[in-house]
Amino acid sequence: MIPSFRVIVPAGGAGTRLWPLSRAGAPKFLLDLTGAGRTLLQATVDRLTPLTGSDGVVIVTGSRHERDVLEQVDVSRANVLAEPSPRGSMAAIGLAAAVLVEREGDVVVGSFAADHVISGAGFADAVRQAVVAARAGYVVTVGITATHPSTAFGYVQAGERLDVVGAPDLRLAPAFTEKPDAQTAADYLDTGEYLWNAGMFVVRAEVLLGHLERLHPELHDGLRIIAGAWDTDRRWEAIERHWYGLENIAIDHAIAEPVAAEGGVAVVPGTFEWDDVGDFSTLAALLPADDAGMHVLGDASKVVAVDTLDGLVVPGSGRTITVLGLDDVVVVDTPDAVLVTTRERAQDVKAVVEALKAAKPELL
Amino acid sequence: MIPSFRVIVPAGGAGTRLWPLSRAGAPKFLLDLTGAGRTLLQATVDRLTPLTGSDGVVIVTGSRHERDVLEQVDVSRANVLAEPSPRGSMAAIGLAAAVLVEREGDVVVGSFAADHVISGAGFADAVRQAVVAARAGYVVTVGITATHPSTAFGYVQAGERLDVVGAPDLRLAPAFTEKPDAQTAADYLDTGEYLWNAGMFVVRAEVLLGHLERLHPELHDGLRIIAGAWDTDRRWEAIERHWYGLENIAIDHAIAEPVAAEGGVAVVPGTFEWDDVGDFSTLAALLPADDAGMHVLGDASKVVAVDTLDGLVVPGSGRTITVLGLDDVVVVDTPDAVLVTTRERAQDVKAVVEALKAAKPELL
Repeated sequence: MIPSFRVIVPAGGAGTRLWPLSRAGAPKFLLDLTGAGRTLLQATVDRLTPLTGSDGVVIVTGSRHERDVLEQVDVSRANVLAEPSPRGSMAAIGLAAAVLVEREGDVVVGSFAADHVISGAGFADAVRQAVVAARAGYVVTVGITATHPSTAFGYVQAGERLDVVGAPDLRLAPAFTEKPDAQTAADYLDTGEYLWNAGMFVVRAEVLLGHLERLHPELHDGLRIIAGAWDTDRRWEAIERHWYGLENIAIDHAIAEPVAAEGGVAVVPGTFEWDDVGDFSTLAALLPADDAGMHVLGDASKVVAVDTLDGLVVPGSGRTITVLGLDDVVVVDTPDAVLVTTRERAQDVKAVVEALKAAKPELL
Repeated sequence: MIPSFRVIVPAGGAGTRLWPLSRAGAPKFLLDLTGAGRTLLQATVDRLTPLTGSDGVVIVTGSRHERDVLEQVDVSRANVLAEPSPRGSMAAIGLAAAVLVEREGDVVVGSFAADHVISGAGFADAVRQAVVAARAGYVVTVGITATHPSTAFGYVQAGERLDVVGAPDLRLAPAFTEKPDAQTAADYLDTGEYLWNAGMFVVRAEVLLGHLERLHPELHDGLRIIAGAWDTDRRWEAIERHWYGLENIAIDHAIAEPVAAEGGVAVVPGTFEWDDVGDFSTLAALLPADDAGMHVLGDASKVVAVDTLDGLVVPGSGRTITVLGLDDVVVVDTPDAVLVTTRERAQDVKAVVEALKAAKPELL
């Protein structure tokens, strides 16, 4: 447990590329995508609660998911902040930080996505170092040591070492970069100076809100007003008056990038395994292959694979799924929809979702 | 209508390569595989009844399918002969021929499979010519003019022209050949002398039974005894005593091949379109492609295809089937099983069925 440390878990995003497994009503973070018996949200809370102590995790989610979140995790009702509508990650994290300041004063907050998969050792140590650096005034990110030149992730540059006692691995983070092309990603990997941006930010709440006040004053003011009213009977009035006008912006653009350019961001390299499970191909890679060379999420006895290799089958309706003579295939079976594609096209599942928006919105 | 002409429709065979669409309890001939609103058996009876007149079609099927057959087609109960167990096409056709002789004397019989698809003009004319030749004493087959060098069909050689009045296209058929390799099939096509063997045989009942008596006397005798008892209260006793010992042999081997070698078989070339719908690839070819380039058997509104070409989708459970980025794919959806394969591997679906025999026989 880390003293005066609180965690914010933004639990949003539909996981469009994981349709038909993830839906608007059953987003990625509510699903068990590793076959471990815990949903991604549950695993996230399991991982973070030991660092904050009980009641130290605040989840920000859409109001339609509030009940599911409360059913899945042992978090108090007060610590689940229901957004009336999605306004981007800056509004979600900023609201939670401002509410925590109202409740507890200037704690260190760490923001960690609800739908990423983390394994291996080193996570807690990286967060501990990040908290130390946050107390020194930095906006701190935990970057992931890249194991391959991924074009699916953004990167954060690790610059000069910073001399902060208790954070031996700390480096200055002069810049964030968007998802690169393959050549750029390969160059990044060669330098050894670029880490995957996993969207993990650790910062003193008042430092965060101070940057926000300077860079996006209207967003800051709106969030402070809503946070001030949150635990009172004026919450709904404040939401009604201020939420819907808030700027919709990601924390990366609002804070991380401009503050990095000013020299205010530090990074702790994380050596643990991390994945954002962004599509069915990365999901397949997370799951062991069975004797027939097939990755199965769910009841493997429902899958019969003949002459196939390295595909993914998700038997999700009780039916038996048989696959013959197709490598790298993806078959996702649900009670009302089936998806058949390849791992190579996994990023393009959103094209299917687009096609369904007009034809069959009830399946989304 | 052709006077004194009767049709025998052997309705058997599971259609293993069309699993999970066809099952032991729902064989191919009971299914609508063309989307025409008629099952293959119904379309067969629709096509043949005008040639025989009503009550001129006799169907031979397994006892477990007797009720389904009677529900599907307007054929009298007496004209559906239920086999207690499968004994091959010679026993099925021979039994029906012998029963017809008992009932009506020496009629001309034509045997046509219950699960083939025929379209275009020319079928009735070919059968008429075959009946004329049958009256002259020949075992007559209708061969299909080959449109490509198929290795999935057997062939029948069309030899010298025969001078039979009323059968201007008649040729001697000196030999049948098994499914050839690709080179042999190409050579056959070049000669223009080889026709696909569609398993259609037209022959005087007593000529057929005479050949059988000579070539397979025990099979002949058993069938005659059973046929003699068929319309009496001794039917079950005769079946019990004689059916299970009958030789299990195809009519091709029992009659067509040896009699062709003796010069007793003639062939009428058929110019109509014919297919045995042997696997999902040929099924796809029978169905028109939709705007997205997908062949659909069933409710096309249940299929969403993106970046695909020339595949086959059978939406058979009410679910929506989405396919992304796979050409020539085959997706067959049923309430308890899904098959995903390619048209290239369509002939190997029996390997899936083999795998299921041990693991999930209830799906077969």
